[in-house]
Amino acid sequence: MPSYTAPTKDMQFILHDVLNISAQDIPGYDELEREYTAAILGEAGKISTEVLAPLNVVGDKEGCRMENGVVYTPTGFKDAFNQMREGGWPGVDMPEEYGGMGMPYVMNTAVGEMFSASNQAFTMYQGLTHGAASAILAHGSEDQKRIYLPKMVSCEWTGTMNLTEPHCGTDLGLMRTKADPQDDGSYKITGQKIFISAGEHDMADNIIHLVLARIKDAPEGIKGVSLFIVPKFLVNADGSLGARNGVACGKLEKKMGIHGNSTCVMNYDEATGYLVGEAHKGMRAMFTMMNEARLGVGMQGLAQADAAFQNALDYAKDRLQGRDVTGIKNPDGPADPLIVHPDIRRNLMEQKSFAEGGRAFLLWGSTLIDAAHRKGDADADGLVSLLTPVIKGFLTDKGYEMTVQAQQIYGGHGYIEEWGMSQFTRDARIAMIYEGANGVQALDLVGRKLAQDGGKHVVAFFDLVKSFCKDNAEVDGMADFIEPLKRASKDLQSAGMYFMAEGIKNPNNALSGSYDFMHLFGHVCLGLMWAKMAKASLKALDNGTEDPDFHRTKLATGRFYMARSLPMTTTHLARIQSGADPVMALDAANF
Amino acid sequence: MPSYTAPTKDMQFILHDVLNISAQDIPGYDELEREYTAAILGEAGKISTEVLAPLNVVGDKEGCRMENGVVYTPTGFKDAFNQMREGGWPGVDMPEEYGGMGMPYVMNTAVGEMFSASNQAFTMYQGLTHGAASAILAHGSEDQKRIYLPKMVSCEWTGTMNLTEPHCGTDLGLMRTKADPQDDGSYKITGQKIFISAGEHDMADNIIHLVLARIKDAPEGIKGVSLFIVPKFLVNADGSLGARNGVACGKLEKKMGIHGNSTCVMNYDEATGYLVGEAHKGMRAMFTMMNEARLGVGMQGLAQADAAFQNALDYAKDRLQGRDVTGIKNPDGPADPLIVHPDIRRNLMEQKSFAEGGRAFLLWGSTLIDAAHRKGDADADGLVSLLTPVIKGFLTDKGYEMTVQAQQIYGGHGYIEEWGMSQFTRDARIAMIYEGANGVQALDLVGRKLAQDGGKHVVAFFDLVKSFCKDNAEVDGMADFIEPLKRASKDLQSAGMYFMAEGIKNPNNALSGSYDFMHLFGHVCLGLMWAKMAKASLKALDNGTEDPDFHRTKLATGRFYMARSLPMTTTHLARIQSGADPVMALDAANF
Repeated sequence: MPSYTAPTKDMQFILHDVLNISAQDIPGYDELEREYTAAILGEAGKISTEVLAPLNVVGDKEGCRMENGVVYTPTGFKDAFNQMREGGWPGVDMPEEYGGMGMPYVMNTAVGEMFSASNQAFTMYQGLTHGAASAILAHGSEDQKRIYLPKMVSCEWTGTMNLTEPHCGTDLGLMRTKADPQDDGSYKITGQKIFISAGEHDMADNIIHLVLARIKDAPEGIKGVSLFIVPKFLVNADGSLGARNGVACGKLEKKMGIHGNSTCVMNYDEATGYLVGEAHKGMRAMFTMMNEARLGVGMQGLAQADAAFQNALDYAKDRLQGRDVTGIKNPDGPADPLIVHPDIRRNLMEQKSFAEGGRAFLLWGSTLIDAAHRKGDADADGLVSLLTPVIKGFLTDKGYEMTVQAQQIYGGHGYIEEWGMSQFTRDARIAMIYEGANGVQALDLVGRKLAQDGGKHVVAFFDLVKSFCKDNAEVDGMADFIEPLKRASKDLQSAGMYFMAEGIKNPNNALSGSYDFMHLFGHVCLGLMWAKMAKASLKALDNGTEDPDFHRTKLATGRFYMARSLPMTTTHLARIQSGADPVMALDAANF
Repeated sequence: MPSYTAPTKDMQFILHDVLNISAQDIPGYDELEREYTAAILGEAGKISTEVLAPLNVVGDKEGCRMENGVVYTPTGFKDAFNQMREGGWPGVDMPEEYGGMGMPYVMNTAVGEMFSASNQAFTMYQGLTHGAASAILAHGSEDQKRIYLPKMVSCEWTGTMNLTEPHCGTDLGLMRTKADPQDDGSYKITGQKIFISAGEHDMADNIIHLVLARIKDAPEGIKGVSLFIVPKFLVNADGSLGARNGVACGKLEKKMGIHGNSTCVMNYDEATGYLVGEAHKGMRAMFTMMNEARLGVGMQGLAQADAAFQNALDYAKDRLQGRDVTGIKNPDGPADPLIVHPDIRRNLMEQKSFAEGGRAFLLWGSTLIDAAHRKGDADADGLVSLLTPVIKGFLTDKGYEMTVQAQQIYGGHGYIEEWGMSQFTRDARIAMIYEGANGVQALDLVGRKLAQDGGKHVVAFFDLVKSFCKDNAEVDGMADFIEPLKRASKDLQSAGMYFMAEGIKNPNNALSGSYDFMHLFGHVCLGLMWAKMAKASLKALDNGTEDPDFHRTKLATGRFYMARSLPMTTTHLARIQSGADPVMALDAANF
């Protein structure tokens, strides 16, 4: 059975040596001293390793089951959920007035990575609740906040997000679920929603569904969609639970992975709902949480990759097979461990350099969200809006790819469920799809984000890379990082220029290259992260760190990324510059 | 539920317009006229579409089960297997004297693609039998051939290949299964084999296990391994079945995919076995079949990709979501079909250009095997030996990647088992692992095949590309193909030169780049195939073909491959040229 070790040391390095968070001028960051974050991460790591990780395989094997409309979660989930509640983990970054810990979002990301890595299906129950609570926090009335938030922040009640319908996923303007206004100000919600994660289960007293629906006579399309709270059990004025509402799980989906999470078809039959925010502004309410939600999914991609990597590494060290061609390494054994073989190394180094680079990217992105929300920093907000589709699309695509590579290290055993490596890939697969399929992320990036606010955010990103390169070009040991980063960044700029020049003639010239652009951008971001980490490690070594091996390993890992992964930008650029013609040449009928 | 359409038209194009098989000077090829192959492919397509494809999901859902040592295959498999027997499909390329059809191997590949695409798990039962029968045909005594082949060619009895043991997969020199010589010339086989596909099941009267084992006092390592026939039921002199032999299935593995195939732990307890060929020459016996077996696995990768693509294409045409940014295409509907969107096109074109290019590569490789076996053409044999790891490694890696992309077209539905897209990826995943994990293919390519016979085969490959480019440089319409092919081929040559120059200093400089080299080589091969197909289509259009749309589509698809996929060679070369340092820098302990 796979194991999980919390990457607290690496997180501490990124938070303090690289991002220097406690010195950042963001409200709440002054408390994030090294010892404080170490304590939080240590506790979160402990529960991840000891409680969540052992349940991961259980959840996969048992899955959820429905009997007479009641959905049962896998053995052990309830107890673990109670432990998460007791630790206050569902509310790490929620306001203290509603029972949260009130910490910055960056801490939620750090602990969230561990929870997701050790058990993604389980962690989704609180993740969805977090999303729903955030929506109420941002857009709900004071009454709604008072009634729902304390219970949701503690996960006494859980939450869901209801967007998709059978005939509409990405294109929510086609939505049919309707909301009939009632005399008392409430609405009757009727319709069917699909793919509702944690839609029904046995771990909470109540489930608060956030549902997008169309009020009678609303404008057509996406501008006529409103957001509603639809509780499973109606809530009385005194906070006690009332009657069962007209919402029920119609079916549990059988999925490729995340079996421990209940993915439900939810049927609303004149269910009582309460409008959140303004009528017809439901999509806007969704959008305000989108950066966080999408960053959270990018985090899942990274988390599965790291968990899979840890196990692949153990296996590569243990499994004896073949001999090192440059000389026997394990003379007393019948063969050398797999890790001596160059192609196994290549595979492991790809995983390692992705996991550590991706982690830095996520935590950096999270500090931008904190700067935006806690400080009202519009530039940070713009930058993280630009980076969000990259974080989501690139980290989930690559994260999945890395789980496949980790599985490959195991040879035949990687294909046998008993060994647990298949689960990492099956679970990681969903992150490329939900919260906006990655093709939609690419479209968002190229079709909206690049040009947002007159293109100032992408310019700001290039300036950031440029000034980092300039400031560090002469620093001893940085040449291995600065030169490749410059080249990659130039490829990204060339791609942007191509879109500007050719996209005007035909938008398909830009859109045909959107997916490659998202990946090109992701590589430049990870290149930047590695350059920053290299700088921090060089500094630590200069300062006579007590842990030189850690920092030398960082530098070697970073050099691998620059030498072996960054060259991908050249190919992405070439693909982009081939334009729309090769992509769009065929009539649909001739495919 | 997914459907499958047999790609007979495309196969006919490749066989006749591109490879011009019936004019090739290979014994048996003169019979392969257009009408003849059309009839064969039509029949194979029919059984694939009507019988095998509908059972694919059944096999995945039900899987195999074991009760009291008896393994039951999924509902419908037995009947379908009988239909395959009646059609003579298990023996397409087997000698007529043993009941086969005696056709060239290229026909076995063509029909095999359809069988695998429509139901890989099912087709493996006869595929393994084919492999075992081939071993007996090549290395067995006349008696062994007489006793076993007629029943195996018809699949009245099936076969298996037993190589792997719990502690050794790639490194077969560690093998422990032992063979004790008996006075009557037979052996007693004792040991445990794992990952035995079709090891036990209910579809045949007897199962003929081919087992690698070590004869008492044999030399250590791989040079002390011998090959044995171990029948499930002993065979009497008159051909009737005798006593049950000492071999039994100890366990059925639960796997990520190919659920319909029984993957068994096989326990041998003093089972009676008969030596095949010479003692201690078991690996050589395995190796003579390796090109075919590995090409067959490459074919599985391609087959799953094509089956998945067909369904993704249908979905992209049917599913209405969003609007074409360049103008509404479906004004009467609520939205345009997915296929209007550039990124969906990009995805579909990658799948289509891979499937068609890969198919040509496989069929070309199969003609080389025919030339080698039927004509004793040593150059063809050398070339296909070189290409075999590329066919296996590249086509299964890319094939898997394409099934993931096909799944992505479905959005959330791609993750739900009911829609069947997950099965394509789960089934395709194994092909990257078995018959030599793809890292081992890369090692075989760079560590053995490149330098084989003084490197003459890779030189022959480059000459082949060069002369094609030279002959067609001036042909109208070929510039889009010749130029990119030249560039890609130059990258491949540069990589080879790097290996020669730097591999001498340190073999790890070559081995660290082996995986990239395998993919680089694969792209050049598909580039060559597309250039050849383009030439054939241009010629057909020149000659006033009755189906100009087909050929124009070919050209457009090929241009996509050259413009969008071939640029990958640049990145592979850059990675290769970064050498061993970034890959090998870390001590294992510092990972």
